[in-house]
Amino acid sequence: MGAQFGCPKKQTKIETNIIFIMGVSGVGKSTIGSLLSEELAIPFFDGDDFHPENNILKMSRGEALNDNDRFGWLKTLNELAVKQLKKKGCVIVCSALKESYRNILNTNIKGNSKWVFLNGSFELIEKRINNRRDHFMSSDLLRSQFDILEEPKNTIEIDISLTPENIIKAIKNELKMKSEFGLFGLGVMGKSLSRNLANNDFKISLFNRHVAGKEENVALNFKNEFKELSSAIPFDSIAPFVNSLQKPRKIMLMVNAGKIVDGVIEDLLPFLDDGDILIDGGNSNYNKTKERFDYLMSKNIHFIGSGVSGGEEGALKGPSIMPGGDKDAYKEVQPFLEAIAAKDANGLPCCTHIGTEGSGHFVKMVHNGIEYVEMQLLAEVFIILKRLGNDPDQIATILEGWKETANSYLLEITIDILRKKEGDDWLVNKIMDKAGNKGTGNWTTIATAQLGMPSTMIASALFARYISFYKEERIIASENFKLEDNLSLNFTIDDVLNAYQFARIINHYQGFKLIQEASVNYKWNLNLSELSRIWTNGCIIRSDFMLELVAIFKTTNNLLMDSNIVKRIEALKPSIKKVVSECVLNELPISNLSESINFLNSFKIANSSANIIQAQRDYFGAHTYQRKDDASNKFYHTNWKNN
Amino acid sequence: MGAQFGCPKKQTKIETNIIFIMGVSGVGKSTIGSLLSEELAIPFFDGDDFHPENNILKMSRGEALNDNDRFGWLKTLNELAVKQLKKKGCVIVCSALKESYRNILNTNIKGNSKWVFLNGSFELIEKRINNRRDHFMSSDLLRSQFDILEEPKNTIEIDISLTPENIIKAIKNELKMKSEFGLFGLGVMGKSLSRNLANNDFKISLFNRHVAGKEENVALNFKNEFKELSSAIPFDSIAPFVNSLQKPRKIMLMVNAGKIVDGVIEDLLPFLDDGDILIDGGNSNYNKTKERFDYLMSKNIHFIGSGVSGGEEGALKGPSIMPGGDKDAYKEVQPFLEAIAAKDANGLPCCTHIGTEGSGHFVKMVHNGIEYVEMQLLAEVFIILKRLGNDPDQIATILEGWKETANSYLLEITIDILRKKEGDDWLVNKIMDKAGNKGTGNWTTIATAQLGMPSTMIASALFARYISFYKEERIIASENFKLEDNLSLNFTIDDVLNAYQFARIINHYQGFKLIQEASVNYKWNLNLSELSRIWTNGCIIRSDFMLELVAIFKTTNNLLMDSNIVKRIEALKPSIKKVVSECVLNELPISNLSESINFLNSFKIANSSANIIQAQRDYFGAHTYQRKDDASNKFYHTNWKNN
Repeated sequence: MGAQFGCPKKQTKIETNIIFIMGVSGVGKSTIGSLLSEELAIPFFDGDDFHPENNILKMSRGEALNDNDRFGWLKTLNELAVKQLKKKGCVIVCSALKESYRNILNTNIKGNSKWVFLNGSFELIEKRINNRRDHFMSSDLLRSQFDILEEPKNTIEIDISLTPENIIKAIKNELKMKSEFGLFGLGVMGKSLSRNLANNDFKISLFNRHVAGKEENVALNFKNEFKELSSAIPFDSIAPFVNSLQKPRKIMLMVNAGKIVDGVIEDLLPFLDDGDILIDGGNSNYNKTKERFDYLMSKNIHFIGSGVSGGEEGALKGPSIMPGGDKDAYKEVQPFLEAIAAKDANGLPCCTHIGTEGSGHFVKMVHNGIEYVEMQLLAEVFIILKRLGNDPDQIATILEGWKETANSYLLEITIDILRKKEGDDWLVNKIMDKAGNKGTGNWTTIATAQLGMPSTMIASALFARYISFYKEERIIASENFKLEDNLSLNFTIDDVLNAYQFARIINHYQGFKLIQEASVNYKWNLNLSELSRIWTNGCIIRSDFMLELVAIFKTTNNLLMDSNIVKRIEALKPSIKKVVSECVLNELPISNLSESINFLNSFKIANSSANIIQAQRDYFGAHTYQRKDDASNKFYHTNWKNN
Repeated sequence: MGAQFGCPKKQTKIETNIIFIMGVSGVGKSTIGSLLSEELAIPFFDGDDFHPENNILKMSRGEALNDNDRFGWLKTLNELAVKQLKKKGCVIVCSALKESYRNILNTNIKGNSKWVFLNGSFELIEKRINNRRDHFMSSDLLRSQFDILEEPKNTIEIDISLTPENIIKAIKNELKMKSEFGLFGLGVMGKSLSRNLANNDFKISLFNRHVAGKEENVALNFKNEFKELSSAIPFDSIAPFVNSLQKPRKIMLMVNAGKIVDGVIEDLLPFLDDGDILIDGGNSNYNKTKERFDYLMSKNIHFIGSGVSGGEEGALKGPSIMPGGDKDAYKEVQPFLEAIAAKDANGLPCCTHIGTEGSGHFVKMVHNGIEYVEMQLLAEVFIILKRLGNDPDQIATILEGWKETANSYLLEITIDILRKKEGDDWLVNKIMDKAGNKGTGNWTTIATAQLGMPSTMIASALFARYISFYKEERIIASENFKLEDNLSLNFTIDDVLNAYQFARIINHYQGFKLIQEASVNYKWNLNLSELSRIWTNGCIIRSDFMLELVAIFKTTNNLLMDSNIVKRIEALKPSIKKVVSECVLNELPISNLSESINFLNSFKIANSSANIIQAQRDYFGAHTYQRKDDASNKFYHTNWKNN
């Protein structure tokens, strides 16, 4: 299940590449191609040698080939490329003047194909052609080739006025010396992702800033520490870092969310070229991501705001990745992100293109909101089981038994935590009970308030952390407010498990409902089933329940409308009612469990007492109200004083 | 108590004014003063005639008067002014070159004094003096007067190069034709405030936009509808509206919060002069108010963001007013705002300068947050009493009995609401149970999340409204999730009252704690006792409990640290525990009542289970933790897997 970091090691090592040399007739593709194949010690293929008989006959009759004639031939070349990729790679020469031709050639090898575009002026090429003895080509024919040419993007473009020797040097420089992917910022997460990329045989550049006396040679020392980083190139200066990357450059920022991201973007911008791609892998606010996306679009730079969940270990062994932004830009980074992502039960990467703009960071934010609740519920389970007389080891044993029906990564680590001893005592008893937070729970609560969604459990889990922070006031209050005598908890441990499961269903309902609301509101067109799929492994909230959600969200976006979930809730309800009412009587802090049943009780009432609130608003503020017996949604106002 | 709109009608009608004519020697003060007194048919006094014998002797000896000599004399003139104000007003001539002199003259009559500043160039005045036969004054003496002169702000400044006839015309124009206060926007609140100002004998200008076919002659028709508006001047065009106001102009905007406010500001700006004052009386977001404050400061316009609570009736009969902004600008509008405000039990206005920038709108926002909770608690009380078998009339009778210990404006109007019948049924039964909201509850929840404060009850009341809005889903859910059989509520009506009172204490604790936190955070230096004082009347959350808070907040900013409140909470606690636990068992939607006891249970625990959360965060994210046994606040990290 999800708790295992399931990242199967890639079978093939991919330093191999298929190098296509393209350009109009007469630029010297064959010459350069065969020189390059010698230099790299890989096979050379001239595309023209692969035409089927029909094409050869047609050409020998002096007829021009049409696109239909070409497609079969291009497919043959693509099959050749796929085959060669499994060996040492190769050089293939082909004019490939149109984007559609190149797409056929690229099929299934996109991450491993390199394109060299030999380019020069009409006059220069015409002159060269005329100097060749064995070629004859009219100026008109050359001109028509220029007309057909759709100039490619993101290739190694070479000026043919250079000597062949220098052309080979320039290509080699781009191909062999340059890294495929840059990692900017080597904190806990940045380091883990770097090693993950290197373990997947990507050639990467590493950057960490230089702060005299504090952060010196961070990238270099990090590279030297791990074998897998032997081919990684370390930097502490921005210009050479950027120049070390193949175009379009792919740079993942792993820096603290906030203004630092903007500072880094400004630092990088002067060195970037049109079409380069920045990926923000931090927990940035989704509104900021939208702003940065727009800003960088105006500079012709792609921006991908990507949630990354899994913590230190997940980042190393396979995190869940939630990239949002331009789909075409995503395709460029897809091979990298999918390779390093965790894999689901079917071996598919826990990484998918979420949607446009800030959608990736939005869903990561809600992921963290759901995480806040899952953590708080376990903390409340702990305090209940403790009041029932169990020590941490005994609680761990109880939770161990819950794995069968309620397993999750967070449950598993909580068991580990409870068992950790320091001398004769449990380490957990020594830990200060002031819970920190780094913004995402806060932002989720703000988003839910702004979107008009009652994600009560996330807010409640956030506030539980806030309350914990008032340690000094809590100590005074614990003396002021005494616990009543003769308290006892009248429920079983199975009731606690049921209450916990009930609350988790409400938590997931609310979290996904918030995502669904944002999807409609921002026109992101998000896929809840696909989202839960990429959360089945790698991320902090992976669980057996998440596995179930993949199927459920294929039929509904609303968990509380699913008949099996309804049945399960009905079965768990007696326990949550008992546990919450008993805990309230016993003055146990279980606000999150409590919120779960209070939410359902508020949600499942056809006629609520909100009519009182509407009447009050109309009374003092003339805010008007609608009537149950008027389907026209007309607004009424009453002078309430005249009885 | 607070539920009565206590706005005692002002005794004296104040169209009368004291007109001071000031300026250096030789500007023609006496001439203009006596002409003006004739024109207005009010007495004329020359300040020089009121010097005490000592001063006269000193001057006759050729000695200059010092400030000590002057102060007694200025006090005499002020006493004269106070006396004349009770009659028809008067014109007083006095050079009054220094601000401190003018402050003495203004004592106790600030709202009713008008200052005319006769001004001209040194050369012009010198020439005029030399042309007079009966005066002799050296150029040095005149120059020293110019040196002493502290140019006054906010006066009617007149250029003495005009003819006396034109000077009188200009002064009369400013004095008699122009309004003292402008009201921009004649919605429900704008209309009520206009009538309130007129009832207090202020001369006002009224503006409402012209929208062909929809809003035409709104101000004119409104003026014609109410006798008290006979001297008000109506406008539907901005330039003449602004020009109809005395300087510094005081314009209160009563338009919908949001971008409309910025639009109105831009519409007004071209017609305003330095020193004019805009008051935003709508429910604007406090962050926006800070932005507008800064923006208008850069244009030399004062901006006051003012909360106004009391609804339609409060605005008419006396609201609670919460102005925030520059203190000097506040002094200019103070006479108006304090006159129209409700009065507290001691007759003091329920209006006070809150603090700088957006502080007025912040406290109004929290006021509304507290209001959301007070309303939600009454809605929950209603649904409990209904489940106990009471009809709306019976519930009203029960609540009537609660006035003795728990009275509030909202309780009173709820009783009125419950008694309102339509035919044989109660009107409240017909009202659609989808509660609206206009942003302030939402903003309070956002502010509390941003400031790190656990204002759980406001968030819970907001979410209760949000849940109510899902009427269609609620109906489906009510069919999916059945109520268990054989339910019964095992508590008394007194328990419900106690639970309600308990929850209200927690609500007020959290609301004022949020204000206190903002005060520290934004350096606003707010006074919680003064704040609760201005909320004892006029506003929606006025209550007997608010009256108590005025005294309590004189000794502490933390309600839960007050020993009497602690005792009261302890006495009420058994009831809230019983009511909440029984309601949870009986599946009644009482999330706000529930949140109150859950908050206390979380707050009064010395050792919470937040240690579990810290351990989890350190486990998966290496977020580190502090230890209870290390007071140095050092951060620790553990490798949790090695057991």
